[in-house]
Amino acid sequence: MKVLVINTGSSSIKFQCFDMDTEKVLLKGLVERIGEEVGKTKYSYGDKEFTVNDKVPNHKVGLEFIAKLLVDPKDGIIKDKSEITAVGHRTVHGGEKFHSSSLITHDVLDAIKEMVPIAPLHNPANITGIEVAQEIFPNAHHIAVFDTAFHQTMPDYAYRYAIPKDYYTRLHVRRYGFHGTSHLYVAKEVAKFLSIPFDKFNAITIHAGNGSSMAAIKGGMSIDTTMGMTPLEGLIMGTRSGDIDPAIPHYIVGRDKSNIDMVNVILNKQSGLKGICGSNDMREIQERYFEKNDPDAKLALEMYSYRIKKYIGAYCAALGFVDAIIFTAGVGENSSVIRQMSCAGLENLGIIFDNAQNERRTSSILEISKKESKIKVMVAPTNEELEIARQSVEVLRSGL
Amino acid sequence: MKVLVINTGSSSIKFQCFDMDTEKVLLKGLVERIGEEVGKTKYSYGDKEFTVNDKVPNHKVGLEFIAKLLVDPKDGIIKDKSEITAVGHRTVHGGEKFHSSSLITHDVLDAIKEMVPIAPLHNPANITGIEVAQEIFPNAHHIAVFDTAFHQTMPDYAYRYAIPKDYYTRLHVRRYGFHGTSHLYVAKEVAKFLSIPFDKFNAITIHAGNGSSMAAIKGGMSIDTTMGMTPLEGLIMGTRSGDIDPAIPHYIVGRDKSNIDMVNVILNKQSGLKGICGSNDMREIQERYFEKNDPDAKLALEMYSYRIKKYIGAYCAALGFVDAIIFTAGVGENSSVIRQMSCAGLENLGIIFDNAQNERRTSSILEISKKESKIKVMVAPTNEELEIARQSVEVLRSGL
Repeated sequence: MKVLVINTGSSSIKFQCFDMDTEKVLLKGLVERIGEEVGKTKYSYGDKEFTVNDKVPNHKVGLEFIAKLLVDPKDGIIKDKSEITAVGHRTVHGGEKFHSSSLITHDVLDAIKEMVPIAPLHNPANITGIEVAQEIFPNAHHIAVFDTAFHQTMPDYAYRYAIPKDYYTRLHVRRYGFHGTSHLYVAKEVAKFLSIPFDKFNAITIHAGNGSSMAAIKGGMSIDTTMGMTPLEGLIMGTRSGDIDPAIPHYIVGRDKSNIDMVNVILNKQSGLKGICGSNDMREIQERYFEKNDPDAKLALEMYSYRIKKYIGAYCAALGFVDAIIFTAGVGENSSVIRQMSCAGLENLGIIFDNAQNERRTSSILEISKKESKIKVMVAPTNEELEIARQSVEVLRSGL
Repeated sequence: MKVLVINTGSSSIKFQCFDMDTEKVLLKGLVERIGEEVGKTKYSYGDKEFTVNDKVPNHKVGLEFIAKLLVDPKDGIIKDKSEITAVGHRTVHGGEKFHSSSLITHDVLDAIKEMVPIAPLHNPANITGIEVAQEIFPNAHHIAVFDTAFHQTMPDYAYRYAIPKDYYTRLHVRRYGFHGTSHLYVAKEVAKFLSIPFDKFNAITIHAGNGSSMAAIKGGMSIDTTMGMTPLEGLIMGTRSGDIDPAIPHYIVGRDKSNIDMVNVILNKQSGLKGICGSNDMREIQERYFEKNDPDAKLALEMYSYRIKKYIGAYCAALGFVDAIIFTAGVGENSSVIRQMSCAGLENLGIIFDNAQNERRTSSILEISKKESKIKVMVAPTNEELEIARQSVEVLRSGL
């Protein structure tokens, strides 16, 4: 079965086509700068990589190009686009309606549209992607895989905020959490690796990439996560502040005669690592610290890992018992420094970190705690696209 | 030595006069409704209690009344007000300038005035209190005891926010923390009780009152605390939200066509327990839950204690090793329910809670963990006024 996975942004389409019998990627790529004067499309069939700079006026043209790549006479992987059984759509916000991936019907699409006010930056692009893909792949089943769905098992005391109840009932203000596909994927992979049944598996997953979040997983279900109503809350990220005193936006607006729209942009785009030290490139920050002892770079590393460390403790308390702590995504998979700084000194929580093992380089699952560590610390590569493809297949198998 | 402690609010003066040779309270009281048509003053000499409803037009008249009470021919405790050696002033915000209590000089008063923009709700009243008291007690030494001073030992990675650095350097946006006098007082008392030298003592202090905060104390010094730049961040409080997604104020302003001033008032005055269940009276909330199984009251208790539990875990991680967890203030001293809910299920962190012991009623320090608990859980009554008086004496002894 061939499954196309697409992740549509406001000016981009990321795509991967899987053969789900083998779970192999047949074609993958990224269409960027949609609507700009010059577009940029990169794609690859296995090792064969291509780049095209043709203008891509809109998402429909972008996706039509992807459809052509699939059936390309020379490198193409299928004869006719009707061979795509399913298109899995990464969909950011499923609100409270979607507890799992869903076959996209009229009602489902309407529900995703209803979520636009709480996800104005993401859902509109996802909706465009779905509508265009339905036109271009009319015979395929379209499945929405939500970033929020995995976290819908959180208890109310974890997802509600201590603000007037009316904001929850009327304006849907609550913790939703994001990166659900990634948290679920690495948790399942590590449970399998450790031979623990997933419904008995307690884990703390740390998705540390450009956006970052952690989840507390109990018996295979998310019971808490650091991102909140929006992806701004929680960990320090590339350009997002994560947790701050909620009075700070008000204070800045008042002192700088600014406005709350502007401050919200600053908290999302100019803060995080970039706000602390001017860069949101973790490799560059580490170099600045290790080679030049740059104090802002040092502070950025310390703040970033201290925030993770505190959430490790918080989630140890929330879970009671923890099988494993799992690092994933760009920083989580590649920065041994951040992993070490986040886990140092946690022996009393049952974490005996292995510095030597932590420095090993591998692209598969790696244990970086010592044998005697009660809580295993693991590095696991994430693969959100594969998880979306898997869930698309599951939806088809269960629903048809 | 007689020390008068005063805590000046915008329309109130709380006062206690101590004989510091015995640390006994000779006179205490509260002047309220200053500036209103009818004032309200309660005071007591030991067991003898009085209430007066005379109009108190301003703080000066209020403090003059207190001075008269001190020298009252019948119940008075001194012959002349010059017998007051020191006046200790509870001062909310000491910014980054004050790491400890300070004799109030011109420069010190100017520095407290400079802090008004970051503490607009508190410092102006404290300044009025100091200026009026200097007039009425011209022979006394005046000492400022800051709520923030104890937390000035936090490392930068704990007090900085991941927002543009300019906001720190130019607008002084950082974590300051509050309730320092209370955190320090109970930590010292419990260290003494457990016979651990204070400079070797690691503790998590939980000041849960109408305002609430926690502190992580390492070797007798604060290394982190839940309140931030303002007293809004961290724990869920009577009417304050504590931690929320920092994008929420922006979202509410947009959806409700409101403004950020209004939202900030709502987060401070209409949120917390009151926002969740309509009441900020912990006894009432417990009754509603236990007697009527009220779901909003249940949620309020669960959210309140879950937040404390997560910070216990976070601070266990931050501290590495913890001698004791200490509950204090109104809720902390009186709600066995909140203490139990906050500490349940933390055996893997080294906390073995003693439910029977937790139900004991006492007004002195009480251990509520089992003998085998690695981390002691304690209840300790706070006494901020006595701590202010003690620090006033210390400042005089060291500085004169």
